Amino acid sequence: MSAQWTVGAYLARRLEQAGVGHVFGVPGDYCLPFFDDLEASAMELVGTCNELNGGYAADGYARIRGVGAVAVTYDVGGFSLLNAIAGAHAERVPVIAVSGAPRTTEAASHHMLHHMTGDLNVQHEVYRTITESAVRLLDPLRAPEQIDAAITASLRERRPAYIELPLDMSRAACRAPGVFSPDTVLMSDRDAVDEAAGEVADLLEAAAAAGNGAVVIAGVEAHRLGLTAELQALIEHLGCPFVTTLSSKTVLSEAHPQFAGVYIGALGCHRTQVAVEEAAVVLSLGAIMSDVDLGLSTGHIEPLRLVAVNSDNVRIHHHVYQRVTLADLIATLRRRVKGGLFTAGSAETDRTACRYACVGAPYVLTPARPITIARFYQRLESFLAEEHILLADAGDSVLAAADLAMPAGSLFLAQGYYLSIGWTVGATLGAKCAAPSRRPVTLVGDGAFQTTAQELSTIVRLRQNPVVFVMNNEGYVIERYIHDGRYNDINVWKYSRLAEVFGGPPGLVVETEGDLEAALAHAQAHPDELVLVEVRLDRLDASQTLKRFGHADR
Amino acid sequence: MSAQWTVGAYLARRLEQAGVGHVFGVPGDYCLPFFDDLEASAMELVGTCNELNGGYAADGYARIRGVGAVAVTYDVGGFSLLNAIAGAHAERVPVIAVSGAPRTTEAASHHMLHHMTGDLNVQHEVYRTITESAVRLLDPLRAPEQIDAAITASLRERRPAYIELPLDMSRAACRAPGVFSPDTVLMSDRDAVDEAAGEVADLLEAAAAAGNGAVVIAGVEAHRLGLTAELQALIEHLGCPFVTTLSSKTVLSEAHPQFAGVYIGALGCHRTQVAVEEAAVVLSLGAIMSDVDLGLSTGHIEPLRLVAVNSDNVRIHHHVYQRVTLADLIATLRRRVKGGLFTAGSAETDRTACRYACVGAPYVLTPARPITIARFYQRLESFLAEEHILLADAGDSVLAAADLAMPAGSLFLAQGYYLSIGWTVGATLGAKCAAPSRRPVTLVGDGAFQTTAQELSTIVRLRQNPVVFVMNNEGYVIERYIHDGRYNDINVWKYSRLAEVFGGPPGLVVETEGDLEAALAHAQAHPDELVLVEVRLDRLDASQTLKRFGHADR
Repeated sequence: MSAQWTVGAYLARRLEQAGVGHVFGVPGDYCLPFFDDLEASAMELVGTCNELNGGYAADGYARIRGVGAVAVTYDVGGFSLLNAIAGAHAERVPVIAVSGAPRTTEAASHHMLHHMTGDLNVQHEVYRTITESAVRLLDPLRAPEQIDAAITASLRERRPAYIELPLDMSRAACRAPGVFSPDTVLMSDRDAVDEAAGEVADLLEAAAAAGNGAVVIAGVEAHRLGLTAELQALIEHLGCPFVTTLSSKTVLSEAHPQFAGVYIGALGCHRTQVAVEEAAVVLSLGAIMSDVDLGLSTGHIEPLRLVAVNSDNVRIHHHVYQRVTLADLIATLRRRVKGGLFTAGSAETDRTACRYACVGAPYVLTPARPITIARFYQRLESFLAEEHILLADAGDSVLAAADLAMPAGSLFLAQGYYLSIGWTVGATLGAKCAAPSRRPVTLVGDGAFQTTAQELSTIVRLRQNPVVFVMNNEGYVIERYIHDGRYNDINVWKYSRLAEVFGGPPGLVVETEGDLEAALAHAQAHPDELVLVEVRLDRLDASQTLKRFGHADR
Repeated sequence: MSAQWTVGAYLARRLEQAGVGHVFGVPGDYCLPFFDDLEASAMELVGTCNELNGGYAADGYARIRGVGAVAVTYDVGGFSLLNAIAGAHAERVPVIAVSGAPRTTEAASHHMLHHMTGDLNVQHEVYRTITESAVRLLDPLRAPEQIDAAITASLRERRPAYIELPLDMSRAACRAPGVFSPDTVLMSDRDAVDEAAGEVADLLEAAAAAGNGAVVIAGVEAHRLGLTAELQALIEHLGCPFVTTLSSKTVLSEAHPQFAGVYIGALGCHRTQVAVEEAAVVLSLGAIMSDVDLGLSTGHIEPLRLVAVNSDNVRIHHHVYQRVTLADLIATLRRRVKGGLFTAGSAETDRTACRYACVGAPYVLTPARPITIARFYQRLESFLAEEHILLADAGDSVLAAADLAMPAGSLFLAQGYYLSIGWTVGATLGAKCAAPSRRPVTLVGDGAFQTTAQELSTIVRLRQNPVVFVMNNEGYVIERYIHDGRYNDINVWKYSRLAEVFGGPPGLVVETEGDLEAALAHAQAHPDELVLVEVRLDRLDASQTLKRFGHADR
């Protein structure tokens, strides 16, 4: 790097210093100079087939590495990317979105520039609504401060940031970046922490004294904020069972003896539902409880039993403490409350009772038997290993995956709340970039796969090795259970042949249990290449979770 | 339809009455009841692989039929669609975007609903910035009036509308739709029309008296507003040459004796540039002159020679008449100005001189010669027929296609200004739905194709018959000319095999002129099926237009 810094080079350096190792994106004329800065940096620039997929990749990457980045051109690029950033916002994933833009001098002209809706303020306005911080760099003197503030806010709040970099600003001189030590710690009000922790401690002690139980919901914010060790220590201190949600599955190890399953109301394991809904105190630590986590209105947690701690506030029953961070609440509560108040009870039994491997009889292979969802997941459970990152797409994949027993050390990624179909294809690419020593195992329905399927191309180009299961039931099966119509049927692809079009290896088709066995053996025998597996299912075959939803009284 | 109307059924009926025959979209839980209304209507519901492609399809459809529609679910659907609607806004294409939404009662609850960024106002706010009219239907009593107003504004202004239909509103009772006769005529100020037309007439007559020439730029608004016959009559009355732009190519027949080429500054045919830039009066009628139309800053029209008439205003030199519609200006000018003031001069010679068929020697097949861009287009020109709709994607495809001589009666579609790569794949689907008796011929670069390639699946499902040429030069060739870097290279697909994955016929590969001859013969021998042709080109092969741009002093 020359002695003279530019705004573009400054931004690239700051991304690197923030922890970004890979930047995803699609080139376009308004962002090409910044792409040169990225190429000149120590980061890897990963071109994706389109912007939406690039955003999903950055999201998957950020869920593992703590921050991700994507760079695109103006309007045609920025607007195509939007849904990925909106999803990252909803799910609290810190993705930095950088968009090129016309020269700052163009704003004053009457020229109609290509790729534009006609108003140079629009894209920034749009992104303001779905990011923590959205800045336009219009002055090289102010740009460094704006960049630092936007990245810092993103890291602190675990939400996306938007940085708009006009063509002329890319090459404008600015100060050297120097050290970057962003203050990303959320600050508490000490008195509020003490009062809140005291009240929670009293509730827990009263419940224990009355012989009642408590349960912890281990939420995804604990992971985003780097607090999983502290959370686990508190849970072990209390001794009570804990559950996770679709968004936080594997935030704590599922092999932990206090683990009691993934809570999704009446859609999930019944014993998990009982463990949560009948506990005298439900201590939710960092969970973003959406309608999905509550089993799409099939679950109910009595407000007078609920303590909900989020990144920077605590809600107890019907009152709220502001400026109490999750970190401080966990630390203070652990000091305040007596250890060993509770026992996990029959959690171990309950937990395993929910598992595929324990539903009905053990898995005995019947090679000629047509494959079903139930048998597929039962078999998959024993395939999964510590090195795996399981990615489950919106629809029945994520619902079915809830009950999969994940080995200690493995990771689970899903858009458990925003549920944008097709997210996993990009996220698989990003996750593998973020954790090169791991192998992604991706579960994606056929309808979801069709939205973003081309990103397998980048997976092939980077010689990544995920095992991708396309669950082919000829349509949007979840919608068949919600509200059926002809529109839920889709064109049936020869999915297994798609990777070859992209220069990848031939895929496999699974129609029977024997085929599945062969496919899993093939995946294990080919640890270094993409394994694309089409699983052919009956049109109405679905997980127990989805079937319960179909029968639920909503 | 039962005697009792609902808001969803009302909206479906109004779309039909507005002229929509096909609605594109992707189902999702927030829009499923409306999908039932669409299924129950006389319109065809065409499911697409993703929302962006559905939006592009509706855009391509609307360019032919005068109005198009797309329906999606909330947030995950609405945000994924955005770029297509932004493009339609920029290019003045009336696409009605309908988005499902959570129940109106949810707005008051504290529930976090899936697919949501957390604020039920956001999506509407975002769409307000890129549509003519954006409405949320929150009250069944007001909904009919809001729907009528939004559709009317879209038709009148030739811009998209956004209609948000919450789940509970879909089924809410409302009044019967009755007749729909939207007032879509833009109104003029009569005195302003007379004064403007008088001033233009004086300018034209003075130029003719001085022995100087004039030229008309036939713009895309003339087509959007249904004024092409009136425009042609005026041009014939004046007798001067006319040109089109990338956005308006084929708005008037290219076989017309007064046609003088597609103007794109110094990037296009030199004689066309001279015809425009040296005319004493440049009368632009409905052209949206963007930087692209001006040859990306290589062209210059002297403001003191320019009369720019748009849908509802006239700019002469440096002054503006408001509330003068294109329709009234054309009609009044024709009455006011003397006929036969000008002659098209050597336009016929100029025109043909720009054509591929006349560049250098006539096309003599050399079967073993590797195919080049120049030879491809030269040969394509004689393949094109009256029944064809030529779609040219952003990048070198649209630049190269500018000089193609289009047969009388044929159509040309391109996003000549917004230039979102990949638009043609969806637009091909939509164009064929809009004009079933025509055959689309699609020119798309490999980089553009990769963004939206899956929509070939829907083309296969509907048994459509486009001829799709994927121009494979292993990357974004236009960017190699603008600003090169490794990022302009992409993964090379086996493009010709992609349609088979979707259940379509095998594709063809063109490496030589002999291959091209065989591919064109195959297309003619298979008039009823998709013909997918990969054209393998040198990495830096490009049209003369792009090469001029690469060498231009910008």
